Amino acid sequence: LAPPDPALKIKTAPAPEPVERRLCVTTPSATYNVELRHDAGAWLIDAIDAATPNARLFILTDQTVAALHADALTRALVGRGRQVTLHSVPAGEGSKTLETASRLYDELLLAGVCRTDAVVALGGGVVGDLAGFVASTILRGIRSVQVPTTTLAAVDASVGGKTAVNSPRGKNLIGTFHQPQAVLIAREHLATQNPRQHAAGLAEVVKIAATSDALLFERVERDAKALLEFAPQPLLDVIARAVELKALVVGRDEREQGERAILNYGHTIGHAIESGERFRLLHGEAVMLGMLAEAEWAVTQGGSPKVVERLSALAKALALPTSWTAARIDLGALALDKKRQGEEVRLPVVPKPGTVELRNVSLEALASFVQRRTAT
Amino acid sequence: LAPPDPALKIKTAPAPEPVERRLCVTTPSATYNVELRHDAGAWLIDAIDAATPNARLFILTDQTVAALHADALTRALVGRGRQVTLHSVPAGEGSKTLETASRLYDELLLAGVCRTDAVVALGGGVVGDLAGFVASTILRGIRSVQVPTTTLAAVDASVGGKTAVNSPRGKNLIGTFHQPQAVLIAREHLATQNPRQHAAGLAEVVKIAATSDALLFERVERDAKALLEFAPQPLLDVIARAVELKALVVGRDEREQGERAILNYGHTIGHAIESGERFRLLHGEAVMLGMLAEAEWAVTQGGSPKVVERLSALAKALALPTSWTAARIDLGALALDKKRQGEEVRLPVVPKPGTVELRNVSLEALASFVQRRTAT
Repeated sequence: LAPPDPALKIKTAPAPEPVERRLCVTTPSATYNVELRHDAGAWLIDAIDAATPNARLFILTDQTVAALHADALTRALVGRGRQVTLHSVPAGEGSKTLETASRLYDELLLAGVCRTDAVVALGGGVVGDLAGFVASTILRGIRSVQVPTTTLAAVDASVGGKTAVNSPRGKNLIGTFHQPQAVLIAREHLATQNPRQHAAGLAEVVKIAATSDALLFERVERDAKALLEFAPQPLLDVIARAVELKALVVGRDEREQGERAILNYGHTIGHAIESGERFRLLHGEAVMLGMLAEAEWAVTQGGSPKVVERLSALAKALALPTSWTAARIDLGALALDKKRQGEEVRLPVVPKPGTVELRNVSLEALASFVQRRTAT
Repeated sequence: LAPPDPALKIKTAPAPEPVERRLCVTTPSATYNVELRHDAGAWLIDAIDAATPNARLFILTDQTVAALHADALTRALVGRGRQVTLHSVPAGEGSKTLETASRLYDELLLAGVCRTDAVVALGGGVVGDLAGFVASTILRGIRSVQVPTTTLAAVDASVGGKTAVNSPRGKNLIGTFHQPQAVLIAREHLATQNPRQHAAGLAEVVKIAATSDALLFERVERDAKALLEFAPQPLLDVIARAVELKALVVGRDEREQGERAILNYGHTIGHAIESGERFRLLHGEAVMLGMLAEAEWAVTQGGSPKVVERLSALAKALALPTSWTAARIDLGALALDKKRQGEEVRLPVVPKPGTVELRNVSLEALASFVQRRTAT
């Protein structure tokens, strides 16, 4: 690594817009901060530094993010006197495998990783899940810090402590629960993702708003265009609120025994659509379609069609898809749902935005609905 | 699976010798029972049944153990109305890899494993570590029951919640902490292991006695011959006591931050010897050699040679090796020690049997001692 640049030790000037949020996430096994700021400057280095005393730092990232942000982060941490190595994997879902984890184990072990060291996950959901999995299993677990660079990762993957790699039999079927030391979100990082990724991430905001917060749902409806354009105030407001809502749910149900199932809204059918599309859809796009389909199913059970209408209008406003290609749905993936209990699944049902019920639904009935819906 | 044999529902007659022990292990994240009995009859089925309500059971074992015990266990569980599938891997350390774990993930996912299901680990340390790792990472963790069939696994691997697979860079470098629902030890299972395996397992009893219990150390000295012959009373007495001592240490230090380091006695140099011998030594044999070497090192630091004498006499009485082949020690493995802290390791030192101190020792000094010792 290059010698530290002394200029980097100087704190950056205050961000032009002082959008800041700090949340404290508490679970039975850990407490940590989620910080959201405008820039990716000195506060980020301070926060990583404070969260990982005495650790050597292994930055895990993907090649796309590495080109954008890894150099600045590495130099700034080295400038702070930290020992840092950088490890990058190809961008995309294809890296979220045991094989890639195995290569990272090798790299970290070769570098002499210790129990007291820490992983910094710099990237989107794939990097966060993969880096979290590696951190939780190498030497039976070392610390990790999440620095999400996509909206999806900021909202979803960085809170809850879920880590995962994919199996040839389905997504996220191998993983652990491992709480990070801190989650550090910079709008400056988020603004470099591509628009399609960003919109897909906003689908997870829609998900938590639909199940838990009518006001947040209305705010996303109102500010959809500004959100797509990364307008600082609405963006950090809605992400912070979504993270806060998720943290509350996760804090009450760390190991996914009960209430946390509401976070699964749109995911049961969404995973089947995603798997049927062979991962050509982004996760958030599939979740949006899954929410629409699950809302339509609720209508067949006597629910109001209003929810379908508002979800559909919001999907359009956020440039998210509202239909999937016929015959491209993997009903087998429904049977592999992790939340399956025997022949049933606990499905979150939204009677109106901001409220949710959990209903035990037969997988067969759900699969047959999806099949009919897909055929039309 | 064959239909249940109704005769199996009848409780077996009381075991001829009523050697029984039940211990309760408490850690911050879990509480579970360790039961030790003479036979492998109805009590074992009762205990598995009670520990895994509503679960489908996936018995993970190796081909050697499968031939001896899997059929009886499977039939008895099916007779109790449980859904059971059997999954076996080749016997030996070679199965303790990410690749084997990956194959087991596939088998369990293909069988439709749910969060509410459970893994039964039937076998020695390799099966216990591998099955525990798979259980802790599939669907982000399902329940497990440990049924150790070797002395090593009974004493060591079944308490403490450590799971692991090996990396090409060293043993146990990938793993998790995952507490089982129960640990169920039958002398009838232990008695089918080969004598060399059994003796190696007793080395772990020697380890915990040396660091924590002078009376247990004397008992092993006195009953060495009877222990090697699987005499029921001394065997279950010393295993129960060793498990109890280990459970106390682990209960006070679940995540291996402090005191638990005493369980590492003999392991720092032991791992280097084991790795240098390319796994031709059994783990317990390497630990015995490691204890001898670490005790000899303590003498160079002013310790009493009496500990070396008693350990050496005990090793001979237990048919364990007391010397290793020159030049067959992997000093690089010392540097990979998971308990390494920078350039030092916290080494347990035994001034006399039953007492222990933790000392920070420079890896370089230790490596140079081992090198001199090996050269002579």
